Amino acid sequence: MPLYTVTTQTGVLDEQAKAALAGGLTQLHVEFSGVPRNWVHIVFHEYERGNAFTAGERAAVAALTLCIRVGRSDDYKRALLQRLWALLQEATAAPDDQIVIGIQEVPASQAMEMAAIMPDVPLPE
Amino acid sequence: MPLYTVTTQTGVLDEQAKAALAGGLTQLHVEFSGVPRNWVHIVFHEYERGNAFTAGERAAVAALTLCIRVGRSDDYKRALLQRLWALLQEATAAPDDQIVIGIQEVPASQAMEMAAIMPDVPLPE
Amino acid sequence: MPLYTVTTQTGVLDEQAKAALAGGLTQLHVEFSGVPRNWVHIVFHEYERGNAFTAGERAAVAALTLCIRVGRSDDYKRALLQRLWALLQEATAAPDDQIVIGIQEVPASQAMEMAAIMPDVPLPE
Repeated sequence: MPLYTVTTQTGVLDEQAKAALAGGLTQLHVEFSGVPRNWVHIVFHEYERGNAFTAGERAAVAALTLCIRVGRSDDYKRALLQRLWALLQEATAAPDDQIVIGIQEVPASQAMEMAAIMPDVPLPE
Repeated sequence: MPLYTVTTQTGVLDEQAKAALAGGLTQLHVEFSGVPRNWVHIVFHEYERGNAFTAGERAAVAALTLCIRVGRSDDYKRALLQRLWALLQEATAAPDDQIVIGIQEVPASQAMEMAAIMPDVPLPE
Repeated sequence: MPLYTVTTQTGVLDEQAKAALAGGLTQLHVEFSGVPRNWVHIVFHEYERGNAFTAGERAAVAALTLCIRVGRSDDYKRALLQRLWALLQEATAAPDDQIVIGIQEVPASQAMEMAAIMPDVPLPE
């Protein structure tokens, strides 16, 4: 954890764009969270044209969900969201009404990484 | 948000069926929630035959997960679930033991829509 | 529910490996939880090579998320995680830094199974 899932229409992100976005998300997350770089996992799911809808009409929705451990402050999460939005919109060129981002949380005790149950998020210094 | 993810076996829903189900889900959600129509995003994920299992046996599982903001009443969510089940079963013709639906929630402050952190769900009038 | 989602790179799990892993996950979950076997649903999502990243570098990430009802003890969830890790690593042969597992929870009232809102997890005897 974090586990990032980026969902876009096939063709929106080519190989280079995925690598660049993955690099940007990883760098951002490491700076924000202080977690080891190899805890950051990103999966791109692509769907065929015609498989996504906004307002009931076909649209090339770009969705990003990330699953993190419980324990970050509201300010942390708000600031992270804003930065993620910028990265995702830059990469996909999607209009505002075709992007959606959500941060899901699980207690550290409900996640495993590097063959170990995850430690709690450290308390702020 | 909401972000609906509909997962079915390839071939269960053709182009027309997806459009119809997306229209039905969108209309239902707007009526229930009162949110603007263009906040409703739906993505269909399709898997190849052989990639889903119920009771350990291959099955054409139809799964619907939706991610909404925290703040709706239990009655709201129960009623929404029942309506979603009916729409999904009508569209897929899946038997009862091959359908699963779950409502996931995130605090409004953990979601972005239309380039803004989402507002809280309004209190009931 | 549970709904298991197993995400791997195409080719990591062949037809037989998916059936074996699905069988193992189902058996484990039934033993742990005591739920009816046909409540256990598993979907395999496969992504093309180049669509997943660990530490910002391409990697064949193996991710498992499961969605269960609220109400299990921390000990239950920790023990389940450890067993899931072993099954997933055995099936995929992924190294420790390319596996991630998370348990997401929803209140029973936010899930439907067998055409009914789910009952609460029984209290421990």
